[in-house]
This record gives sequence, C-alpha cells and structure tokens, in this order.
Amino acid sequence: MSNRSDTWSDLELDLDGDTLREECGVFGIFGHPDAAAITALGLHALQHRGQEAAGIVSFDGSRFHSERKLGLVGDSFSDRGTIERLEGTSAVGHVRYSTTGETVLRNVQPLFAELDVGGFAVAHNGNLTNGLTLRRDLIRDGAICQSTTDTEVIVHLVARSRKGGVVERFVDAIRRIEGAYALVALTNKKLIGARDPHGIRPLVIGELDGRYILASETCALDIIGARFVRDVENGEVVVITDAGIESLRFAPPQAERPCVFEYIYFARPDSVVNGRSVYAARKAFGAELAREAPADADVIVPVPDSGVPAAIGFAQACGVPYELGIIRNHYVGRTFIQPTQSVRELGVRLKHSANRAVVEGKRIVLVDDSLVRGTTSVKIVRMMREAGAREVHFRIASPPITHPDFYGIDTPEREKLLAATHDLEGMRAYIGADSLAFLSVEGLYRGLGCERRNPARPQFTDHCFTGDYPTALTDLTVATPRKLALLAEAD
Amino acid sequence: MSNRSDTWSDLELDLDGDTLREECGVFGIFGHPDAAAITALGLHALQHRGQEAAGIVSFDGSRFHSERKLGLVGDSFSDRGTIERLEGTSAVGHVRYSTTGETVLRNVQPLFAELDVGGFAVAHNGNLTNGLTLRRDLIRDGAICQSTTDTEVIVHLVARSRKGGVVERFVDAIRRIEGAYALVALTNKKLIGARDPHGIRPLVIGELDGRYILASETCALDIIGARFVRDVENGEVVVITDAGIESLRFAPPQAERPCVFEYIYFARPDSVVNGRSVYAARKAFGAELAREAPADADVIVPVPDSGVPAAIGFAQACGVPYELGIIRNHYVGRTFIQPTQSVRELGVRLKHSANRAVVEGKRIVLVDDSLVRGTTSVKIVRMMREAGAREVHFRIASPPITHPDFYGIDTPEREKLLAATHDLEGMRAYIGADSLAFLSVEGLYRGLGCERRNPARPQFTDHCFTGDYPTALTDLTVATPRKLALLAEAD
Amino acid sequence: MSNRSDTWSDLELDLDGDTLREECGVFGIFGHPDAAAITALGLHALQHRGQEAAGIVSFDGSRFHSERKLGLVGDSFSDRGTIERLEGTSAVGHVRYSTTGETVLRNVQPLFAELDVGGFAVAHNGNLTNGLTLRRDLIRDGAICQSTTDTEVIVHLVARSRKGGVVERFVDAIRRIEGAYALVALTNKKLIGARDPHGIRPLVIGELDGRYILASETCALDIIGARFVRDVENGEVVVITDAGIESLRFAPPQAERPCVFEYIYFARPDSVVNGRSVYAARKAFGAELAREAPADADVIVPVPDSGVPAAIGFAQACGVPYELGIIRNHYVGRTFIQPTQSVRELGVRLKHSANRAVVEGKRIVLVDDSLVRGTTSVKIVRMMREAGAREVHFRIASPPITHPDFYGIDTPEREKLLAATHDLEGMRAYIGADSLAFLSVEGLYRGLGCERRNPARPQFTDHCFTGDYPTALTDLTVATPRKLALLAEAD
Amino acid sequence: MSNRSDTWSDLELDLDGDTLREECGVFGIFGHPDAAAITALGLHALQHRGQEAAGIVSFDGSRFHSERKLGLVGDSFSDRGTIERLEGTSAVGHVRYSTTGETVLRNVQPLFAELDVGGFAVAHNGNLTNGLTLRRDLIRDGAICQSTTDTEVIVHLVARSRKGGVVERFVDAIRRIEGAYALVALTNKKLIGARDPHGIRPLVIGELDGRYILASETCALDIIGARFVRDVENGEVVVITDAGIESLRFAPPQAERPCVFEYIYFARPDSVVNGRSVYAARKAFGAELAREAPADADVIVPVPDSGVPAAIGFAQACGVPYELGIIRNHYVGRTFIQPTQSVRELGVRLKHSANRAVVEGKRIVLVDDSLVRGTTSVKIVRMMREAGAREVHFRIASPPITHPDFYGIDTPEREKLLAATHDLEGMRAYIGADSLAFLSVEGLYRGLGCERRNPARPQFTDHCFTGDYPTALTDLTVATPRKLALLAEAD
Repeated sequence: MSNRSDTWSDLELDLDGDTLREECGVFGIFGHPDAAAITALGLHALQHRGQEAAGIVSFDGSRFHSERKLGLVGDSFSDRGTIERLEGTSAVGHVRYSTTGETVLRNVQPLFAELDVGGFAVAHNGNLTNGLTLRRDLIRDGAICQSTTDTEVIVHLVARSRKGGVVERFVDAIRRIEGAYALVALTNKKLIGARDPHGIRPLVIGELDGRYILASETCALDIIGARFVRDVENGEVVVITDAGIESLRFAPPQAERPCVFEYIYFARPDSVVNGRSVYAARKAFGAELAREAPADADVIVPVPDSGVPAAIGFAQACGVPYELGIIRNHYVGRTFIQPTQSVRELGVRLKHSANRAVVEGKRIVLVDDSLVRGTTSVKIVRMMREAGAREVHFRIASPPITHPDFYGIDTPEREKLLAATHDLEGMRAYIGADSLAFLSVEGLYRGLGCERRNPARPQFTDHCFTGDYPTALTDLTVATPRKLALLAEAD
Repeated sequence: MSNRSDTWSDLELDLDGDTLREECGVFGIFGHPDAAAITALGLHALQHRGQEAAGIVSFDGSRFHSERKLGLVGDSFSDRGTIERLEGTSAVGHVRYSTTGETVLRNVQPLFAELDVGGFAVAHNGNLTNGLTLRRDLIRDGAICQSTTDTEVIVHLVARSRKGGVVERFVDAIRRIEGAYALVALTNKKLIGARDPHGIRPLVIGELDGRYILASETCALDIIGARFVRDVENGEVVVITDAGIESLRFAPPQAERPCVFEYIYFARPDSVVNGRSVYAARKAFGAELAREAPADADVIVPVPDSGVPAAIGFAQACGVPYELGIIRNHYVGRTFIQPTQSVRELGVRLKHSANRAVVEGKRIVLVDDSLVRGTTSVKIVRMMREAGAREVHFRIASPPITHPDFYGIDTPEREKLLAATHDLEGMRAYIGADSLAFLSVEGLYRGLGCERRNPARPQFTDHCFTGDYPTALTDLTVATPRKLALLAEAD
Repeated sequence: MSNRSDTWSDLELDLDGDTLREECGVFGIFGHPDAAAITALGLHALQHRGQEAAGIVSFDGSRFHSERKLGLVGDSFSDRGTIERLEGTSAVGHVRYSTTGETVLRNVQPLFAELDVGGFAVAHNGNLTNGLTLRRDLIRDGAICQSTTDTEVIVHLVARSRKGGVVERFVDAIRRIEGAYALVALTNKKLIGARDPHGIRPLVIGELDGRYILASETCALDIIGARFVRDVENGEVVVITDAGIESLRFAPPQAERPCVFEYIYFARPDSVVNGRSVYAARKAFGAELAREAPADADVIVPVPDSGVPAAIGFAQACGVPYELGIIRNHYVGRTFIQPTQSVRELGVRLKHSANRAVVEGKRIVLVDDSLVRGTTSVKIVRMMREAGAREVHFRIASPPITHPDFYGIDTPEREKLLAATHDLEGMRAYIGADSLAFLSVEGLYRGLGCERRNPARPQFTDHCFTGDYPTALTDLTVATPRKLALLAEAD
Repeated sequence: MSNRSDTWSDLELDLDGDTLREECGVFGIFGHPDAAAITALGLHALQHRGQEAAGIVSFDGSRFHSERKLGLVGDSFSDRGTIERLEGTSAVGHVRYSTTGETVLRNVQPLFAELDVGGFAVAHNGNLTNGLTLRRDLIRDGAICQSTTDTEVIVHLVARSRKGGVVERFVDAIRRIEGAYALVALTNKKLIGARDPHGIRPLVIGELDGRYILASETCALDIIGARFVRDVENGEVVVITDAGIESLRFAPPQAERPCVFEYIYFARPDSVVNGRSVYAARKAFGAELAREAPADADVIVPVPDSGVPAAIGFAQACGVPYELGIIRNHYVGRTFIQPTQSVRELGVRLKHSANRAVVEGKRIVLVDDSLVRGTTSVKIVRMMREAGAREVHFRIASPPITHPDFYGIDTPEREKLLAATHDLEGMRAYIGADSLAFLSVEGLYRGLGCERRNPARPQFTDHCFTGDYPTALTDLTVATPRKLALLAEAD
C-alpha cells in the first residue's frame, strides 16, 4: 500500500486497485476576512485525504457562494478569481475522491440547499451504515436526490425535520443516522461541527486571530499558523457563532473509539490525532515490528512514501542502517500511455525504481505500512531481486486486513484482500519474499500506547483486522448486490 | 535548494527564485518497434531534469513525426493517440524548462529541419558559450532563426556545412561550438550522440532487445529494463545504425571533467553518472560534512527531498538519529492563490511543514544539498523554531556557490547568490541558524573518491565554487547586457 | 430586433440587451435505436430557440444517461463518445439560454430525478406564473431545490404526488401549475408530452420509422426526414409507449391561443406552427404593412436575418426592388475585444455593414420584424445614412411592444421598451428615421388569416401588444422586487 | 458551391470537399495607437477569406509581438489580454485556412524573422508558381524551413538578399517569385505592401485618422470607418512611413488582370474590388444568366448564402418572384456526430432545409454562384423534390470550371471537377435537375462591364474557365506527384 500519496494512479494500480481509498477531508472557518483563502489552504494541507475533487461554500452575510471542482486544490483554487468569487467571512470546504461521468460534480461537496430557514451547506467525512435505508425511505416520501452521497441524506433529514431552529434540526437529523461521520456545516449564522458517537473519523477545533476553525487534522491548522484548541469529542456537536463555541451532546457519553487506520495510513505524519502524534505512532509500529519479527539483514529499506516512518522506527530499533533502496518518481501525471504488449512486458516502473547502489548484493528488509491486495508488493520484491538483492524480507507495520470497512474506506471486495484468502506462508509465497511478517494486533495497540487491546470494548475501531464492527450495519439488510456480497464475505 | 523536484513553483519560490534550473534531459532509441512509447518512458524517468515541456520526434522510414508539448511527460504523452502519431522505429526526445509566451513551443525540443540531405532532428542538454556569437554571424549571413535556443545554431551549422554526409556535417558543426553539450540527433538513417570535449553534461549508451539507446542518465535505462553499456566519452561522437555503433572522436583525447552539480543536485539518486552512484556520492558528501562540521544535536533532519541522502550520510557518520522533522506536501499544482496581505503574513507553508513531534524541544541539524539565495532556508529555520526547536544547526552538503554557470544551469545573478555577497557568519545571521557550515571543496572531492582536487586540471567542472571555468566564454565578449553583467559580477 | 439568430451577442448588444430571449426548445423520441443521435439532430434544428446550453437524457432499458453542456449542440454533442454514452432507444432533449456561474449546469435541462416509481426526466419550454409560489410552499414542506428553474417545481410536484402511476402523478402535478408550458418527459416505460391549456408554447408529434417523436417545431422533424403527425393540443397530455400514442385531457376543451411571437420572431421560417407556415405569415405581415404604411422609395432593405421574409413580402406587395443593403457577418465568436474608448468611437459594426452600392443616393425602406429597445435600430439608421442613403424609412412588421411577457420570453423591464415610453413620433425621432410605421394589431391578425381579432377571447396570446394576459399571474402577488416592479409597470 | 461562408465543414462537405478554398486575407496599419485592435477588427471583416487561423504581429518601437491562433478572429482575438500583449502602433495581420497537425501553428501567418537589418513580419495572400523550386534551391543552400508555406520562401529571399536596405531586399526578393501575391510586411520602420504584376489578388489602401491602412478588401476599411484611398496597383510596392506613402514599381506597367473569382465567390458583397461593386457584379451575373438561360418557373430560390445576390439579379431580370425556398442553419459548430449508418441514411441536412411552403407544387429555379464537384447540388435538388417541387431548374451564375487554379484557390483534382469530366447534359443528369445552365464566359465579362473578353490579353484572370494561365507555372516542372498530376489533368 505504498502508492497512496500520489497525484495519479499509475498503470499497475489502475489495473490492480491495490489501495485503500475514499477518505475525505473537511474544513470550516467562521468570521475571518480571508475565509475562502484560508479554507483553500486548509484543504491543500488535507489533500492527502482526497485528490479528485474539492469544493468550498462561503457566506457573505446575505448570499452563499459555491465553487466545486475536479482536481487538486492547488490547481482548482489557485486563481484569484475563484477565491474572490467566494465572498464572505465564513466558509466550509471538502476534498474527496470521486468517479467519472456527468454526475461527478453533483457529488462534490460541500452540498448546499436552500431550506425554509435559510441556506445550509454541509461537508462530510465518513460513511453511513444506514444511508441507503434512509435514502429509500426519503424517496418513497417524495424527496428528490441529486447526488449519490450519504451526505445528501443528511441534508434531506435536516430539511424535513419539524424541529424549530437549524441546530435543533441538525441534531434531529444526525440522531437518525448511524455509521461514521465528521461533519462541518455552515448556515447564515453558524458554523456547526459534529462527530459520530464513536469518534471514528477525526475532527479538531483550531483558532486563528481569535476566530474558530474546524478541520479533519491538525496539519490543516499548522499550514496557516492556527492554534490547536481541542478535538471535537465523540457524540458532540459544536456550534460556532460570533459569541464563541457552544457544545451540545447528542449521544450518551462513552469512550471514544477512533479508526486505527488514521494512524497506520490516512493521516499526515505531522498531524496529532486524538492527542497522539501520527509520526510517533508509525515509528512505534515499526519498532514493535522489529521486536516481534526481526530479520538478519544489511539494510532497512522503506517502501516510499507511506512506509518511511515505520522503516525509520524499525531501523532504529534493530540498529541496521536505513537506506533509500527504492526511489520514488513524483512527476506523475494522471494517466500514462497504454503501452503495447511488448512495452508492458518490459515491466515498466513509472513510480518506483530500484537504487542498485544500495540493494545489490545485500540482504534487505522492506518495510511498508500495510498490505491490501499485495500486487504492488509482488512487483517491488521482484524489482529488488532484479537489482541484485541477495535476500528480501518483507515487514508490514500493521496486522493482516481480513474484513471490509463500511465507515469511509473503500476496501476491495473481500476475496481480493490477500490476508482474507491466504495464510502467512501463502502470502509470503505470493509476494515472493524470503520472509514476511505483520505487526500483531497487540503490537499495534502497544504502538498506540495501550497496554493491551480491551476485547470487551476496544479502544480503537479495528474491524478490518478483527471483524469487530463498532456500529450496526443496517444497510447490509437492504438488498443491494454489492452490500450483500460484502456481508457474505465478511462472515 | 530543497525545492527542485517539484511539479510547480510555489509562492515563495516564484518570488525568490531560490533554485538552480535550466538543465535538460535527452533520450534516443534506434530500430525498436515501440520507439515512441519507450522514449516517452525514458523522458518520464528524466523528468527531474526539466518539467515544463517535452518533445519527441520519430522517423517511420519515410516521414518524421513530431509532438512537442508543455507540461509533464506523464500528462502530455500519456494518451494512446499521441504515441500512435509518433510512428516509426526510431525516436529522439527531450525534456526542458521553458518560459512563457507564444514563442514557447518553438523552443521545445527536439528541433527538426528538412535539410537537403533529408530530415534532421536534434535534442540538446547543455549551453554553448559561443552560441550568441555564432547566431549573430548566421543571421548576418541570411539565416532565419525561429527559436531562441542554442540548439538552433547547431542545426544551422549542420545545414550550411559543405561537408558530404550528415555525420561529417554534424562533426563539422560541433567543431565550431564551445561550451557544454550532450546531443542526440536523428536522421533518416542514423541515431547520433555527442558529448562535449570535457564531458560536462552526461550521456550514456544502453541496450534493449539488441537495439541501442542514448540517454542523459542511467535511470532512463532502468525504467524500461535496458542494460547500461557505457558512457559516451568526452569528445566522442557515436553513430548508431542497423550495423551497430560506430565511434568517432572530434576532439583530442583528454581527461573528462564532468559537472559536479550532477552529483550534488541534478541527477537522480538511483543514477550512476560517469561510473559513480549519485546516491552514494550524496551520502558521502553528508558523511564528509559530519566529519568537517559536527554539531552537538539530538536529531538530524533532512530538508526534503533533495537533502535526504546527505542527511542519511550525515546521521550515519555522527550516530545521531535521523528523523523526518519536515513533512513535504507533494500535492502541489502549478500555481496557488495569490493571497491577500493578511494571508501572506500567516507565513503559509504550501510545501513544507514542521513535524512538531520530532522538533519540539530538540537540538536539530538541518541538512540540505546546496544553498543558492538562502530565502527558503530562512523560512525553514523559522519554521523549525516556531515548532519548538531548541537549537537549529544548518549544514550544506556542498561548498558555497560564488560564481555563475554558463553551461546549462540557470544560476541567479551573482549579487543574489548568498555566498557571493556574505561571509559565513553573515550567511548564518541571514538564515537565522545557530550555526552554519558548508562542505569544503576538498571534502567534495573526497566524497567523489578523489584524494584531492587537482588545481592544474580539476577532475570536475566546479567553477560555481571555484571560478575555474573549463572553456572559453566567447559570448561574454558579445555585448549583451545580461552577459556583460554576469561577466562583471563573476570577476 | 435583427440580432437573434446569432451565435454570440456582440458588443453593442451586450450593452443594450435589444433582444427578446429565454425561449427554449424540446425534443423526445421513443423506441428508436439511434435515439440520442436523432435527439441531437433535432436539437440542432431547434438551436434558434436557445443557444447557450443543451442536454439529453436517454434510457437504455435499465439505466438513464445524462449529458448536459454549455454551448451549441453542434459543438457539445458532436463527438461520438458523447452520443455513445447516451445509450438506449428513448431520449429527451432541451436547448436553452442560461446565465453564468457555477449554478449554470444545474439549470441545464432535461432535469432528472430518481422517484420511487423509477427515473423521471423532463424538459420544459415556457414559464410558470405560479412557479415561485409553488417553490416557496415546497421548500416550507422540506423539499430541496437544486436549480432555479420552474421545471424543478414540476419534478417536485410529481415526486410528492400521492397518485398511483407516473402519468397520474404527472397530470396531478400539471393541474397545479399555471402559465405556459410545452413539456416532454421520459420514464422507464413512457415518453410523455403536454401542452398548457391555452397552447401558448408549441409542441408537435412526428413519426420516423414507425416510432413517435415530440418536438417544439416541425423543422426538427424535417432535419431527420420524419413525418409530421399533428400538433399536441392545448390542454392535452400524450403518452407514448410501445403500444402507440394515448391521449388524455387534463383541462376542459377550449380554443387554443398560441403565442403570436412564434410567428413574428421565434419559430424558424420553414416551420409550420399550429397549421400555419411561419415564412408565409412573415411575408403576409410584410405585405399587410406595405398596404398600411407604404413609402415612396427606391429599394426595400431587410434588416438581416430576422427581417428578411417580411421585407420580401413588403417588396412584392409594393413593387419596389428588394436589395441587400445590409450585409451580415456570420463569423462571430462569443465575445470580442473590449476596445479602447478611441476604438469604440469608431462606431464599429461587428455584425452588420452597409452595402454602399445599394444604398448610396437612394430612398430606402428598412424592414425589421419587431422593435424592442430600439438601440440597434438607431445604429442601423445611422449606418445607412453614413453610406449615403437619401431617405431612410423604417417599417416594423409587428405592433409596438408595450407590455412584458411572463410565459418564457425575457422582455426587458417595461421602461426600456421603447414603445412603452414613447409615442410614434418620439420613436421615429429616437431612431432617426425619416418615417416609422408599425403593423397594426388588426393587420397582424389579418396576416395570420383571421378576419379580425376577437376581443372577447383573442385567437392568439398577444399581451405584449395589448396587455391582455391569458392566465392568472399568481407570482406577481409574491413579493419579489423584480416581479412587483414588472407588475407596477404593466398597468 | 453554396457552403463557403461557414464556420465549419459539415458532414457531407467533409466527405465531398465541394468547395473552393485556400484564399487568405491580409491587413496592416501604421502609426495608430490602437493598431492591434484595429487589425483584429479588420481581420474580422475579412474572416470570409479564411476561417481556420489568424495572426497579428505588432511593433512597439523596440520589440515585435506576435499572436497566432487557430479559430475565428472573434474567438481568438476577443480578449483584452491578447490585444494588450500586441503592443505598439503598427501591426500586420492575416486570416487563413489551414490543415491539422502539429505544424499548423507554424504555418499561421504573419511569419516573422529576425534579420540582421532588424525584425521582419510578412503576411501573404496568394500562391507562388515557383515556390517549390525556390524552396528546393534554398534548402540546397543551407536554409532551414520551418513552415510549408510559400511565404517562408519570400522571407528567406529577403534574408539572403545582398541589397542594402530592407525595401531594396524586399524588391529583390519579389522579383524572383512568380505567381499571385498580395503582400503586407512590417519592419521596425515601415509598412510595406505589394501586389503581383498582374494584380491577381486584391489589395487596397485606406486611411483612418490620417494613418494608412492596407487591406485585402474595402469591407475591412468600412468596419472601422476608414476611408478608401485607392487600390495598390499591379506590379507596385507601396512603402508607408511616418512621412507618408512612397510608391515603387518593380515590374513594367501593364494592364491589370485580377482574378474573376473574387467577383464570383470570394470577396464580400459589400466590398468594391478594383473599382467594381461585388454585389452589383453578382446581380449582373444573375441578370445575364436570366437572359441567356431563362426558365419558365414560379419562383426563384437562392442557394444560401453565396447564391443570394445572383438570385436577386436573376429574379429582377425575369420578373419571377424571389423566395427563400431553402433555409440555412447558421448554428453550426466545427464538427458533428458521425452518425450510425442508419442515421446517415436519413439524409440529414445539418445546414440547409427546404421551406416547403415555398417549394411545394412549384416550378423552381435554383440559383447558385458556381459549381465545383456538384455533390452539394445533388443533395439540394433532391431536397427540393422531397419538399414537393414540381420542376427544379438549376442555374449557375458563372461558367463551368474545367481547369485547376495555382494562385491561391484550392481547387479539387481535375477529375473531381464536374465540368471537367461531364458535358452539360451529363452534369444535368448527375445533379438530377430538370434543366441546368451556366453563365457563358462572354456573359461573365458583360456582367463585369466589358463589351467582350479580349482573347489576346484577357481583362481578368479566368483560367479556371478557359485554361488561359496568366503566368509561367515553373513548379509544374518540379517533379512532385501532385503537381505533375495536376499538369497532366490541365491539358
């Protein structure tokens, strides 16, 4: 899973889908004269959470303005004109993955609707587990859905709520949804944030020039020099107005249970998620792994870029030199030639290449953050051997992925998860390494500073490794082929 | 100089120009059925040598085909249509930087001309030191120049040569030019390569499926699985036909004197230039620097990405932990918002951010590959301090740059080179570090495996550090304001 | 009003708005293997009814496909890919004017919604006079509106109807709307057409290869060689399925009252609207005008292109030669340079120029189809005089426009209608002609073959000339500033 | 040949090439503060002479600026930025047809070269009959040609001339070329115009605000309100400076012999070419034709738009009503769907449609300006019959085209010229008309005001009808397949 922080999906990945995707990033600011520019910068810092589309909605005191575009924030929101059209002192923004076709732009968030109480814009990171069920009920009741996002379901629930004010309607709406959500909403008077009862997806509060900010990660505060205030709590709604922050609880208090994949892969290494440094966690995963599964080797080689912190941790723990045995080419466009069969057989490496000076004649340990389908790993091991590696030991700084996600991570179908269909020796043979080891679940928890995993109520959302889902999965009872297929696989 | 391997120039760099630029990359292949696709892949691997434009000319046995585009190879040469239009089994290609305006595309190489002996395409990496002089003479003689490149001068010299065959004309032409050049040319029968008498710019020969390739660096061979054959020698012309490789010498034999900046900054770390691993050289520069200028510190932090190998070498040599104290954002577009003054004052970091978990409370050593104007360094030091660094020591893994280049590197005017106008303490004070040190020239040569620099005839082209230019600088006697200004400065 | 059949709005028109706009065109076909291609051709023939955007929705038996684009049909729907994506044997399409901004594409029709009874696409030509009122009620009831079109109101009414089948719901919905509408809707089983109780906007039924077509005008049948079957009647719903056409009446039978502007200006001259040739009607208007307001002149000059048929009729009736005294430049892009003040003062004619050979020294009669603000007429008269015309007599082949429209024609505010603020002599003086005459209302009716206008229930919708609106104007009681302003003016 | 004044080539034309093309238009102005804007307007007025590309070169007193673009002037030169980049008070411009591919932009004129005497820009309307021969000689002599235009040959001749000043060099150069040319050139001090010794292509002098203008037609003067001064004479060079106009003769005086096709088809009807109104000439051709070949008919129908003036003349001469029996759709994009075979069989009319109200049951006379291949005529006759015409008589207001052109008109190969391979009855049968007649050559001359054609030295260049070429055809002796083929055919 070394391919994520990319501006394109290269040939082999387009074919293989050897990635976890579909995360999103959200951002909001209230009462700042440069609201749109700051939101664009915040989204730029969150770009690793979704690279295919971005959107910003601003409010200027009387009108809402919306710009939603395909492509990178740095490309789409880079011109003065776009920012100037987003007039006003409050704004919310969103980055996401999306698919092709005319419907794309309708799915780009933030979504906006003119309600009878005024305009309402909302951006969502996460996935509802009863979204399809609610959508079906809404359409039966005459609602018209323009997008295919769960987020639109939330907008309809707010629009149809019989409660009085917009915050009351918003709370009324989110009490009906289940799953994972970090929401940022903007009305003509308020900026609203909410995090699901388990706190699966992250959301933090920041402050700049005395004005409040909401963002998926702290790195979006750092880019603009904003101060970190605190995390939004699980089951909390925060309402930001000129008077400050008001906090409401819409769910009974319980311990948070954040998604462990934020630490393994999604969040940026310089972010602090729920009080823990992501970089430190990844190094700790690597160090735990070095203790659990050492290898007698000459060099430790990270699979760039996602495996770098774990590899540093691994190398420091075992005292073997850390070396760049794989060079990453960052100049990748969105597509590349579809070569002839003869070119394809060259085994082209568009994105990675071996650094023979490091690899040749050596026993190497490759460290990556996680393993999904394994197709990329196969190629990297082969590339190392072709560059003269004497032994190739593969170490994965997280446990085997055996179950699909329903909370915003687009995992492949279960039968394509290598760990769901192969035992350890089968995986090793498949990727062609001399040895293979994963971090244990307990090692993962130790890396996160826990003495051990609490099996009664785990401290983290970790179902991909354990099958232990934190919420009901209502939509799986709705007969959609894909969902049913996933259910069947997941058992 | 940490900003080079980028797909854009961000805000601060656009303002400051704190980079070395204007290198190019060349590639050619003869007699392969996938000539254009392979050339595109080769250029993709050479993308770090020039990101603004790319071009390919192919020959199909009767006609030449040309595609020249602005943008990255992976964007411009990614569609099947473009590659299919480049019919034929031989091709030459080029990547380059360029400027804005209507004339841009005319300067994109390879240049092509229909001579009376048939079509002639040529791609050039380097810069002539008598190009303006020759151009002036040619225009006086009725030549019409469409581009502003030195390369066109070469084409005119070939066209006007009275020698018999095209190779004889080509040799006749390059005997009249001086400066740095690695040339790849394609005729209707031959692929021709040439390297200047000093071998300042690199050029290698590879082989794939029994067909020969010319490329600026070995990484362009690795991407397609081609075998490295040998370097083209300084003062050598190689002529590739169906019969194989023929070698001609157009200059008297002498020791090569390659540009030391290929090792410091330009070449890709996995390339082997003139028999030396670039990665190993950079690590050696870092190690030499650690010995010359140690620092009592807690962590070694690379300025990503160009400072990484030297930082690893530094850390290994001094035993202090290597840590990612700066995180690089690779999702950068070509431009970004021109923010309001208030946004500008936020000190926005579009490309780099501090990893507080590593930096806070620590004594850190920042390692970068080189220092040009110093403007980026100022910001990075400040960013480290704002993230809580207790001490910030800056180490540059090359000597101070005091002289401009005239061989294909676009150095700023001399008064903007920090080392040309400040002594060491002045530079330290300017960038705000607690200490600052550069690698010595002798350390640089040691890092390259030389016992010492030979002052009579240095083993490398190193005038930027020493003022010792390897060739005449004829154009400086042509009264162009910029050239004269450079001359004045250089003394 | 000589500027309509244009692909752009030129400099003077952008400033002046001397046009009537906001008509649309609709098309639908059921059960033909080339449904999308035929719809594109039909929309191309209807392009004169709206040039800013076009859309097609098709149904392939299981899924709906939608393509909606800004620009001309011949540009936007010209590539094979677009047509091929519109799979299926049924399709509906729409051409329209639209405004700028991000919301544009949401307003491009056909609109589509997934109802609980299946997908529903609808295209609308016309304007509702209670659309704002219905929208306000819907939003109060929790509906979310994505566009600003009346058409979306219809979709919501269908979605919320409690009737059983989709046709029943559709009829239930249109019984609640008032104003002008020609509707074409597509479901997963049926193509539906409807025309308002007065038949203000046109809609015809055609047949090709045994499959039925709905279109705004007969010219959209002619382009594909389809046979004209009949007009959809006022107050009729037609339901087209594999079983043929079923006809329903949703309003009590009454004489139709089509919009007279279709004959004067909107429809294409080769169309037959409600049984009358548009070309013949325009010639008849010209002939009536020649009888009502003859001029002693040397040549009859049409204001191209819209004045041409009336000018031919005028010339034939009075026996004075018809000559092209004004040449039209059809090579107009969408915008043109915004010249400096000195260029502006040149009185540039981007679209029209005088043909001096015809005009010089002559007494000329200019014939145009209608007069809105008069700004273009001023310029044309001046252009004729500068080309040497001895006398310039202006003849308008329709009556003075004194009242705004609310049925799909975007008339300027009342105070900008020249005839609403000036008497005949005032208008003549304003445009600078030697004489000016309009066709009388009775002359208009004679041109349409009526003995006289029936004041109790006019045979045509003619309120722009008479103030006699055929329907209630409910929205004018909703307090929107613009609507109230129009109401005030209209009295 | 009714299809020329179009912004695209529609389906049938792309297949058939039933047009004459390759004319160009030129414009220049000296010493006016709005030089670029005025040139853009002038080119817009000349757009009918070439719609595929346009270019402007300006001079600001020290530097030349160039903008050359594909597409219409109104699209490409419509933004303020483009005009503002064209700084300076002098400018030359060009409109042209061109072909596809990467080389397109190199062929867009004006061409520019930096000569040793300074910058030199030139725009050319016409074609050289020794261009290939000169090009071959130049390349042999070491010249490098970037474009495939004859114009570049002229630039090389100027660059290589050994004469003293730029005007002397220019005269030296054009003395070596043969064929047709109207040239407009700009240096850093002068605007130069030249017309070939026969005056085949037109060029006029105008005056605006006391500054001089050169343009292909008077309509380019009218659009900006400039005054017509006089035609540039055949064999004359005019040199415009701040001191006024200087006139030089480079060829011995002889009677002019302008191309008759300017009157028949190319020039705009409101232009005055060589002292004759184009509109009046076309009407006279129609009237002569009515006298030579009357028809017993009910209506006269022009093939729009090019047949309109001749049809008016025809109708006036014979007293039969002129009616719009064919409606032209001007909303055509650059391409259209490539329909399936079944759609193709519909006989789609993208650009023309029958006006049944005029045609049905009538005996009609179709009047067109010329007939090339006849493919369009076939379709139009069939369309008339399908619309119910009782009889269809076709009248062509020029003689049969039997010989190719070599002076700037892109005639099809000879075997595709209908009149070169069919006798009159054969042509009639081919197009399916009830009768067919052409204007006689003598009738053509009468229409132009000549008593008769002077066979010894015809008053007009009319070889397409007579085979009487006014100049040597040197290139036909250069063995290019296409040229030789044309030569063979022409005999």
